[in-house]
Amino acid sequence: MAVYTQVSAERIAELLSRYDVGTLVSAKGIAEGVENSNYVLETDRSRFILTLYEKRVDADDLPFFLKLLDHLAARGQPVPPAIADKAGRQIQSVNGKPACLIVFLPGLSPGEPNVAQSRSAGAALGKLHQSLIDFADLRPNTLSLPGWHELARRCGDALEEIAPDLGKIVAEELAFLDANWPSELPRSAIHADLFPDNVLMLDDKVTGIIDFYFACTDIRAYDLAVTHAAWCFDDEGRSFDAERSAALIAGYAEQLPLSDDEREALPILARGASLRFLLTRAWDWLNTPDDALVTRKDPAAFLRRLEFYRAAGSELFAR
Amino acid sequence: MAVYTQVSAERIAELLSRYDVGTLVSAKGIAEGVENSNYVLETDRSRFILTLYEKRVDADDLPFFLKLLDHLAARGQPVPPAIADKAGRQIQSVNGKPACLIVFLPGLSPGEPNVAQSRSAGAALGKLHQSLIDFADLRPNTLSLPGWHELARRCGDALEEIAPDLGKIVAEELAFLDANWPSELPRSAIHADLFPDNVLMLDDKVTGIIDFYFACTDIRAYDLAVTHAAWCFDDEGRSFDAERSAALIAGYAEQLPLSDDEREALPILARGASLRFLLTRAWDWLNTPDDALVTRKDPAAFLRRLEFYRAAGSELFAR
Repeated sequence: MAVYTQVSAERIAELLSRYDVGTLVSAKGIAEGVENSNYVLETDRSRFILTLYEKRVDADDLPFFLKLLDHLAARGQPVPPAIADKAGRQIQSVNGKPACLIVFLPGLSPGEPNVAQSRSAGAALGKLHQSLIDFADLRPNTLSLPGWHELARRCGDALEEIAPDLGKIVAEELAFLDANWPSELPRSAIHADLFPDNVLMLDDKVTGIIDFYFACTDIRAYDLAVTHAAWCFDDEGRSFDAERSAALIAGYAEQLPLSDDEREALPILARGASLRFLLTRAWDWLNTPDDALVTRKDPAAFLRRLEFYRAAGSELFAR
Repeated sequence: MAVYTQVSAERIAELLSRYDVGTLVSAKGIAEGVENSNYVLETDRSRFILTLYEKRVDADDLPFFLKLLDHLAARGQPVPPAIADKAGRQIQSVNGKPACLIVFLPGLSPGEPNVAQSRSAGAALGKLHQSLIDFADLRPNTLSLPGWHELARRCGDALEEIAPDLGKIVAEELAFLDANWPSELPRSAIHADLFPDNVLMLDDKVTGIIDFYFACTDIRAYDLAVTHAAWCFDDEGRSFDAERSAALIAGYAEQLPLSDDEREALPILARGASLRFLLTRAWDWLNTPDDALVTRKDPAAFLRRLEFYRAAGSELFAR
């Protein structure tokens, strides 16, 4: 959440001259998103985001992300596509990094979502999935079961630094998910990271869905499970909000009906979603210096969610 | 250059409801300025900057800074005043920090300034000083000669980690400045940190002068010397640009004539300006962890300027 690569105003103005977007009048580095550098730009015509992709986004994945955004934007979904320059190119090179000029979307990310916002988020995800039924490009999810095994292995004994017995808990959960992970549910491109941070709203209506840099091909209902884990608890994962949960699921199902199989799998998928963020946060926690300016997100917030979903069982998502 | 205090959209919207500025539609944390947290806000009417003052700005100094900005704005100077809420208050408390809602100014900070931009910067500083002749409030400059002595003492032997013999060079320079620092030159409120970063321009015209958080009462020509050191070299202080130098000084003098005494003192004032940034950068360098996300600025860039001004002598600023 910082600007990793400094780009001069002259360099940005030169970049914009390749596009038909007007003349640059303002440029501010913003602290937002995954580990990319972002600038909010204003020209005499409109506003834009300039994103420079740092180490966390593989340049080889960019065409998938951009095609996905184009597909969604063409279907009226509130996503920010990359703009093509006069030569038709969406991907540029700026200070040695791949970079895109992106449509600016208004709206505010909810801090702690209310029930109406949770319903809107569920509905937005349902519409997103509906719009992706005819999107054929594939990107494997590197952060699914095999990826979680790999992360757990790399964290190793250091997991105990985060919580007592965490290594054992993770091993047991991985064994459970190996035995029970569904294989026959509908798959499509999914967002895979739809936290409130990545949703812009005005008056509880979704005006933007952003940060598609974990998007991949996976079980659709897994995306709903990730969103459920992200929206239906307080930040620390200590208190579950049943009203937000019901609203999120109902909002989704009104746009894209959930099959009985999907609904039955949700408790397992939600355990997987919790484990995914528990493990990536644990890895970042163990590998971020104490005094770095990046705020480390607490892995325990997702250990608590995991424990909640284990205890709640299948009742939680029953119709 | 990061957002140190996270403020939720809900909290910002609540804050804005105290003002007559419209309804919030966008809020982005920006990586800008001294060690404050800044957000660029958009309402249905206009754009604003929300600044939360972190440890580097003393809350007791805020009334001086705000009165200075009001004074300058009332005289048509391109500075961003703090907006008063419906009850007339300019200073708020947000997440435990003093905070101000500030006018947003368009414009771009030059990366490496050209000659026309240097002339405009000089002229803008001259107009600023002209507008401050009738500004009576006082704030001592804590980063003048006694402050430099104190900083040198606190850095101590660690100065040798930055450059060989740096302790000796600094001690000699302090002795020279003690003996030669002018005492009779015109004084007023000054900006004291007018680097290109703090100037916004469009088409080489100044549209904004920002970041007044080092403003204080001191020798007016010292402010010009700081600006000279900031604008007339490459970043690393390796190459001096005589054309930019002449343009900057001429631009200033066209707005506010320089007396012979001021002109004669400029070589000494420029040595002081170089030492000031050498010492504050040295202190930050020695006290910022290697792996922090804040970019440490190289003190040697101002050691080189100091050496340049020592060698150039009085010829440099001759008419």
